[in-house]
Amino acid sequence: MFEKIASLAKRRGFIYPGSEIYGGLAGTWDYGPLGVELKRNIKNEFWKNMVREREHIVGLDAAIIMNPKVWAASGHLESFSDPLVECKKCHKRFRPDEIQNSQCPDCGGGLTEPKQFNLMMETYLGVIEGEKLKTYLRGEITQGVHVNFKNVLDSARVRLPFGIAQIGKAFRNEITPGGFTFRSREFEQMELQYYVKPDKKESMKWLEYWKEERLKWYEDLGMDKKKFRFKEHGKDELAHYARAAFDIEYHIGDEWKEMEGIHHRGDWDLRRHQEFSKQDLTYFDEETKERFLPFIIETSGGVDRAALFFLMDAYREEEVKEGETRIVLKLHPRIAPYKAAVFPLLANKPRLAEVAEKIYKDLKKEWFVAWDARGNIGKRYYSQDEIGTPFCITVDFESLEKDDVTVRDRDTMEQERVKINNLGDYLKNKLQ
Amino acid sequence: MFEKIASLAKRRGFIYPGSEIYGGLAGTWDYGPLGVELKRNIKNEFWKNMVREREHIVGLDAAIIMNPKVWAASGHLESFSDPLVECKKCHKRFRPDEIQNSQCPDCGGGLTEPKQFNLMMETYLGVIEGEKLKTYLRGEITQGVHVNFKNVLDSARVRLPFGIAQIGKAFRNEITPGGFTFRSREFEQMELQYYVKPDKKESMKWLEYWKEERLKWYEDLGMDKKKFRFKEHGKDELAHYARAAFDIEYHIGDEWKEMEGIHHRGDWDLRRHQEFSKQDLTYFDEETKERFLPFIIETSGGVDRAALFFLMDAYREEEVKEGETRIVLKLHPRIAPYKAAVFPLLANKPRLAEVAEKIYKDLKKEWFVAWDARGNIGKRYYSQDEIGTPFCITVDFESLEKDDVTVRDRDTMEQERVKINNLGDYLKNKLQ
Repeated sequence: MFEKIASLAKRRGFIYPGSEIYGGLAGTWDYGPLGVELKRNIKNEFWKNMVREREHIVGLDAAIIMNPKVWAASGHLESFSDPLVECKKCHKRFRPDEIQNSQCPDCGGGLTEPKQFNLMMETYLGVIEGEKLKTYLRGEITQGVHVNFKNVLDSARVRLPFGIAQIGKAFRNEITPGGFTFRSREFEQMELQYYVKPDKKESMKWLEYWKEERLKWYEDLGMDKKKFRFKEHGKDELAHYARAAFDIEYHIGDEWKEMEGIHHRGDWDLRRHQEFSKQDLTYFDEETKERFLPFIIETSGGVDRAALFFLMDAYREEEVKEGETRIVLKLHPRIAPYKAAVFPLLANKPRLAEVAEKIYKDLKKEWFVAWDARGNIGKRYYSQDEIGTPFCITVDFESLEKDDVTVRDRDTMEQERVKINNLGDYLKNKLQ
Repeated sequence: MFEKIASLAKRRGFIYPGSEIYGGLAGTWDYGPLGVELKRNIKNEFWKNMVREREHIVGLDAAIIMNPKVWAASGHLESFSDPLVECKKCHKRFRPDEIQNSQCPDCGGGLTEPKQFNLMMETYLGVIEGEKLKTYLRGEITQGVHVNFKNVLDSARVRLPFGIAQIGKAFRNEITPGGFTFRSREFEQMELQYYVKPDKKESMKWLEYWKEERLKWYEDLGMDKKKFRFKEHGKDELAHYARAAFDIEYHIGDEWKEMEGIHHRGDWDLRRHQEFSKQDLTYFDEETKERFLPFIIETSGGVDRAALFFLMDAYREEEVKEGETRIVLKLHPRIAPYKAAVFPLLANKPRLAEVAEKIYKDLKKEWFVAWDARGNIGKRYYSQDEIGTPFCITVDFESLEKDDVTVRDRDTMEQERVKINNLGDYLKNKLQ
């Protein structure tokens, strides 16, 4: 499945291997013309759902490079690591689960006990050699929110419960990137940090609330709910900051893969940042006149991962009639890269092209719309099916007389005639 | 001016110093609830204007971390540098223009001749100590496009002239970050790489075209065109890749500041990547049956810089009446963070609050809308003026009888009554 999606993604311009002409760079990916629209749509849907349409949630966009003290406080310098064994002879490192016996898979040498290998990527700031500041590319976008908790309180005058949403890149020196874009070294996260009263019952209620809300978001964007499940982290699996944690998992092939995490972080982040920065990060409750550190419920999803799962969930190979199959991406219209494609039935008839071009330009004022005038109509349909375009609009000779066009539906493959003047409203209705 | 904007930006939640609770981190900035919307609006306007509404321009989103060979090919490892002098005694480094005489400003020691200091930030990938791959955070987003030239040709089937637009973060180890967000170490760029036939006349025509188009974009979003000028780079100022270069400069205080660059890159990037990658990056012209490397015209702007200049251009201190002034951000409605604010005239009248809340929730389905029920109406107006909200909608006792509201215009401060049912259409018209 990963291979099929990766192949389609490369061929049609969704996703290319990063730095491909130089032989690539493991764990990095570049989004092509269609991929960038898919990702934009996912991010816009997230922002609309989490920030614009809700009350008490605001956005934030923090820098990728932060003061290194942030990562000491957050526990990332200590605990953000994977165990590795090292070959005593060739010094290569491996994940313990990659090792079949107690020997180096490469040279047969003896192995060390597992040691912790930190995933944070380093970089250096400043001008003076030997005095440069060692800092890190953020390993998660989360801390950019928590270090600004006070700033948001002071400038946005929010009250508990409230949330701060953020979308942005994070970096991890993954030992074994893989599964196409599933585990990358550079990736984009979309998160909500939701601050609530530090009360067990209250906070657990919000944890449940956000579990349901996030699941619903994926469902509303067309994903098959039968392929979802929640997986609760056992006590021994919990990350250093977590009091409770659930993954939304998606079923692919014969595996369950993590798609998004919903975490109860307690007051871990605020408490640590208060301790390390010596700043007062408490919240003052006007009703009870109490000061306290709120609890945090987090929803943490990946944009790249969502894009990948949306593609996998939408991918179909269908037999149209005997001996004729099509690949179709049944993407929800709101996340499909193009909302429609416009075709003149024949490319060499100026009158058809003229009418089609006018429609194309009109629709482009509102939506991303494709144009295709090559080959026969059937091929153009299949070409659009493969990239998930919900509607194909064809201008034919009848159009010149009746001012209408054929609109063909991606999923049903049914066609109907629509007046050119009504096309905007027609699409508006269908695309919601 | 920078100080006034920085102070407003911090106080109202546009922009905070990065990692502020830890004493900050020079040259990094975090965008708060209003800043993130301002930046989102700028980026969306760019994308709409450059990609969605045009033909022959597609988008791309490449990884920040690329194979280091990219930077050898692009000339960044060699030429992406500023000259610095070093104190022979304390080894501090300075820009030659910071030095008053031939002594170290700190310790009085002697100085070396100026040496080139590279601005690329390093990072390391991989697991094996001593064998980690040294690579870089991209110093510009440009190369992510050019290394994918062939991928886009193959998957999007575009023909010359065509463009690839991109928005994304870049990093430079600036020696003296400053001017608020004007010169940062982490910043976001918005660019177009436009490929044209390698013909002098043709390429210069496109250079002129894009100069005008980009200027027009800033003007259409409300900036004062009298404050713009083009500055042409002299032969001795041209970057290593450029055949011709113009800056759009903006007049602030008594200085002209660079806002965006329009560059003729010749075939520099494609030629170098072809040479270093040993891949054929030529374009095949179906009409002339020729193979060649296209010329590149680039428009390169900064999202942070645009946000800063939009804020500065919009900032006014106005005397409303004697002894009463207001700060107002006359931002174009399309880039203002909130499109409207909704107020119940009195907070403690449930009937007013109920009607106002319904309006608020309805409008939020379409736009970012603020809510305010504190203090008197005059203060609420001024609070919204200061963040650039174009319209304030007040529900008063008359609203309960007549189903209408007061809409107050930010710029004219005039008020008119609008039927609640018509509010959506009213705003839609005004916000275009």
